[in-house]
Order: sequence, then C-alpha cells, then structure tokens
Amino acid sequence: MSDLAVAVEPIADPYVVAAVESTGAQVVDLAHARVLVWLGDPGDFPALPDEVEWVALKTAGIEGYVRAGIVDDRRIWTNAAGFYAENVAEHALALLLSGLRQINTSVLRHWDKEPIDTAVRTLRSSTVTIVGAGGIGDALIPRLRACGADIIAVNRSGRAVPGADRTFTVDELAQVWPLTDHVVVAAPDTAETRHLINADVFAALPRHAWVVNIARGPLIDQQALRTALVAGDIAGAALDVTDPEPPDPDDPLWSLPNVIITPHIANPASGLPRELAPWVAENIRRFTAGTPMLSVITPERDY
Amino acid sequence: MSDLAVAVEPIADPYVVAAVESTGAQVVDLAHARVLVWLGDPGDFPALPDEVEWVALKTAGIEGYVRAGIVDDRRIWTNAAGFYAENVAEHALALLLSGLRQINTSVLRHWDKEPIDTAVRTLRSSTVTIVGAGGIGDALIPRLRACGADIIAVNRSGRAVPGADRTFTVDELAQVWPLTDHVVVAAPDTAETRHLINADVFAALPRHAWVVNIARGPLIDQQALRTALVAGDIAGAALDVTDPEPPDPDDPLWSLPNVIITPHIANPASGLPRELAPWVAENIRRFTAGTPMLSVITPERDY
Repeated sequence: MSDLAVAVEPIADPYVVAAVESTGAQVVDLAHARVLVWLGDPGDFPALPDEVEWVALKTAGIEGYVRAGIVDDRRIWTNAAGFYAENVAEHALALLLSGLRQINTSVLRHWDKEPIDTAVRTLRSSTVTIVGAGGIGDALIPRLRACGADIIAVNRSGRAVPGADRTFTVDELAQVWPLTDHVVVAAPDTAETRHLINADVFAALPRHAWVVNIARGPLIDQQALRTALVAGDIAGAALDVTDPEPPDPDDPLWSLPNVIITPHIANPASGLPRELAPWVAENIRRFTAGTPMLSVITPERDY
Repeated sequence: MSDLAVAVEPIADPYVVAAVESTGAQVVDLAHARVLVWLGDPGDFPALPDEVEWVALKTAGIEGYVRAGIVDDRRIWTNAAGFYAENVAEHALALLLSGLRQINTSVLRHWDKEPIDTAVRTLRSSTVTIVGAGGIGDALIPRLRACGADIIAVNRSGRAVPGADRTFTVDELAQVWPLTDHVVVAAPDTAETRHLINADVFAALPRHAWVVNIARGPLIDQQALRTALVAGDIAGAALDVTDPEPPDPDDPLWSLPNVIITPHIANPASGLPRELAPWVAENIRRFTAGTPMLSVITPERDY
C-alpha cells in the first residue's frame, strides 16, 4: 500500500480511478498531486505544479506535447507506447494483408475475379521492412514470421533487432529498398523522420510493393505517394494515418483503387481507458517501489 | 531417374512439364501414360485408359470430381490440399483481420471515425474456432497464435489438433459456440457438412462474432446468414466462397456493410502451375520410389 497522491484529469475515468486506487494510491486534485494521469489532449494540458514528479500520457505518439513545449526535464514523463504496441502491430498486419489480398478492390468491384486474382500477392515468402523497429516492430515481427515472411528491421542505432533477419540503420536505407517487398512505417514523427518515405524510396521499391503506415502521416511525402501510386511505381498504400489528417475530401487518395485508408484507429480510442487502466496501475506500483517504469520518455533520444 | 510416362493435360503447362521432366519422367500423350496430371476442370475430364494408375488433380476441393463420378477406386487420386494450405490460411487470416479491423467500412465510408473506432475488435485475446481443422487449420493455427488468439479446433475424430487449446468433434459443436468469438470454416463440402453453419449457429454465437469461409459456399446456410447479419446476431461475414458462386448480382449480401466478399481467390489461380510444379515433381518422385504420396484422396473417408 502507498499513500501516493494521483490526479486523473481532465475526466476522472472510472476504470482508471479504480486502477489507481487498486494500488493503494489516492485520487486527488491536481493541486495536491505528485502524479498526473493525463487522459486529455495537448491543447487542454494544465499548468503543472512543481510538486508533480511524473506525468503519464495516454498516447503512443507524443509529438503534440513536445512541439507545444509541454514535455520538460523537471519530472518523469511516460507515454503508452509499449501498451499500444500489440494492438497497433495487429492493425499493421491487417492493413498489409488487406492490400496483398486485394480486400479493397474486392469490396468495391463485386466478384471481378480475373483482375483481382492476378493482383493478389502472398505475405508468405516476401520480405517486409519495418522502418522504425521499436516496440511496435517487436510486436509485429512474430506475426510476420508466423506468416512466413522474412523481416528487415531499420532503427537508429543499427543494433540487431531480435527476430529480424537483418537490421540496418536509417542511414543505410538506400541499401534496404532493393531487398524489400513491402514496407511498414513505424517510426516516431520527428524533424529527422519527416518525409523519410519519399519519391526516391518509391522509385527504389519494386512495383509490387505495398506501403503501410501506422505511425504518423508526415513520415510519408504524400504528394510523392500519390504520384507513385498513379504511375504504378508501387502496388498500393494502406494508411491508418495521413498528412493532413483526415485527408481533404477532394484528395485523389480517396479515389485511387490501390489505397486503403482507415481513420487512425490502429489503436481504437473506444474502450481505451478500460484497457489502459491496468497499465497505469502497474506503472504506479513501479513508481512507488522505485523500480524501472514502463515507457519513460527520453526527449533528447526519442524526439 | 525413371522412365515413368506422364500426361499433362489439357494444356502442357511449361512449368509443370519441366517439373515432370526434372524427375526423369517422360511427358507423353494420355493414351500412353501411367500418370495423368490434370490441370483442367471436371467438365472437361477425359475418359481414362485402364493403364492410368494415378491422377493428380490441381484443386484442393474435389467435390466436383466426386459428384461427376470421376473419382473411382481403380487407381490413386491426389488433390493439392496440402500444397494450398499455407496460402488459404493466409487468406483466412486476411479476411478475419479485415473484418475485425473494419477495413470494409473504412474503404467505403471515408474517415467516418467514430462508428469505425467503436466497431473495431482485436484478434488478440479472442477465441477463434476452426471448423474442419485439417491442413488449412494446421497452417492457420500458428498465425492465429502469433496474433495472441486462443484456438478451438473442430474435426470429425476429436483427436487433439497440435497447437489448438481444445479440440471438439463435429457432434459437440453446440458446446463450442458459447466459447467462441470468431469462426473460420475450413471443412470439405460433403453431404454431412452442408449448412453446418446455420440459423442455430448464428443464434448461439456472440453478437461480436465474425464468420470467415475459405472452404466452400454450401457449408453456410446463406439465407440464414443474411437474416443473422441484418438482425445483428453476428458482427459480420468475410467470404471467399458463396452459394451460388458468384452470388446473384441482386443478392442483398453485396449491399450489407458488414460483409466482405473476395471472388474465390484464397488460392489465386494466376501463377498457380508455376507454384504447383515442384509439388507435382515431389509426388512423382514418391510414386516412383513407392514411398507415401502427398494428399492422396480417400473417397470413403473424405467425401
């Protein structure tokens, strides 16, 4: 048991409150809190009392908090990247298989068998490159492996990613594309990663390549993507995120047959606090015990 | 090397011919053959000389040959069930994930975020029941397992299926539905399995259930399926096969939002002889050596 004082804002979600109280901690106003569990958006983020030692954010991507200058170095910040990884990896697999298996054209074209049959590709025996192979990559790799795919991981350090056949650094990307059948974009949205997937990449990928983005829209140069899709430089794109988001209603992406767009639901918001709650409780137990916490943000490294 | 005489009909596909010749066998006319590799359809099947000891069919489902009285007990018949299992299992996973992840409504509705978000379900932590867990089930189970699903296998014998959490016999199906989140139909099309998935099943399944069929259309009572989908008794259906096939253009299935139909392309015909060729060669080697062959049809058991 602890007498840790935790604020749950801006709404005292009952699942999260119950999870906090299950650790012995007290749910209090922000003015009296050592911990803030923030279930809102960056735009509503409150002024933080100096006494707040840890802020738990509910999202995986935290670029909105970083750009607004909210994340500081005076306390611990956690995101929920680890918590969401399995869910997002599942959506990445769903998008990739939907593209390879022509679910989009099937839904739209009504038993137009011959063109669909000839467009179907198998994930089995293909090579999938995961750009930004962190927590989501760790969750995606065993799924791809079970489907018989080979895996190339790309990360910043080049440190070998467990389960990947090969690991490259971001600086070595030009070597990666000729070895790649399909791409999953899973990197954070930073100044360095903006338009990491651009016209040069689409030119280097094979024409049968599907590109999946479950990270953030700006990772892909969307104008170059449109051009590549129309020209047939790649086979298709399956996007859970876009730039801007949502795309303009007149954006040609909507009408291209080789595009699948889901509305940023890789990690569905519905029911989220309920799923997040046990994870918050676990991190409270670790904070209280002084053991290493989950998903601590290290701004100088990650963003 | 062997001097086995093999006919490749009705078209001497170059990939299959090369594979046959790679074993040392000779490609000959049917009139002089001991083996027929049949790449056509049941309607074009030729009269068989008595000297033909083995017929290799290219399909997994052979009900068309059985009903036409083509399959006899005077020689060996093989199908290609084992060869296709990995490919069909991949399509089953694609259909299931497409339904759970609302790819169909995403493709049609254009960033209609809230209803899509609330309809998304995860394969992770769900229980998938495979009805007719044979070769396709063996290939599907590790894929589902890697996605974090629990697996119930249903077969005729009740003999425990490796990798499944529990195995039931077909006679015990009524016990299975309350334990099931989603269903994959993978059984052969026989008199016994016709309408195995019927109104009683849809009533017993949970309302969040997706039903996937990659086997044969008649396994599902399609009228009962329509009724269940309209009533919301189940969440959706993802079908690679229908009854009749294709569905009538006016069939309400086409317009239901919670239906995904792919045009019988789980195992795409395009490029098939090329993929089939090494498998034909392996079975010729086994036939010549007298070792157990792959995918031998046992009519009294399977059909």
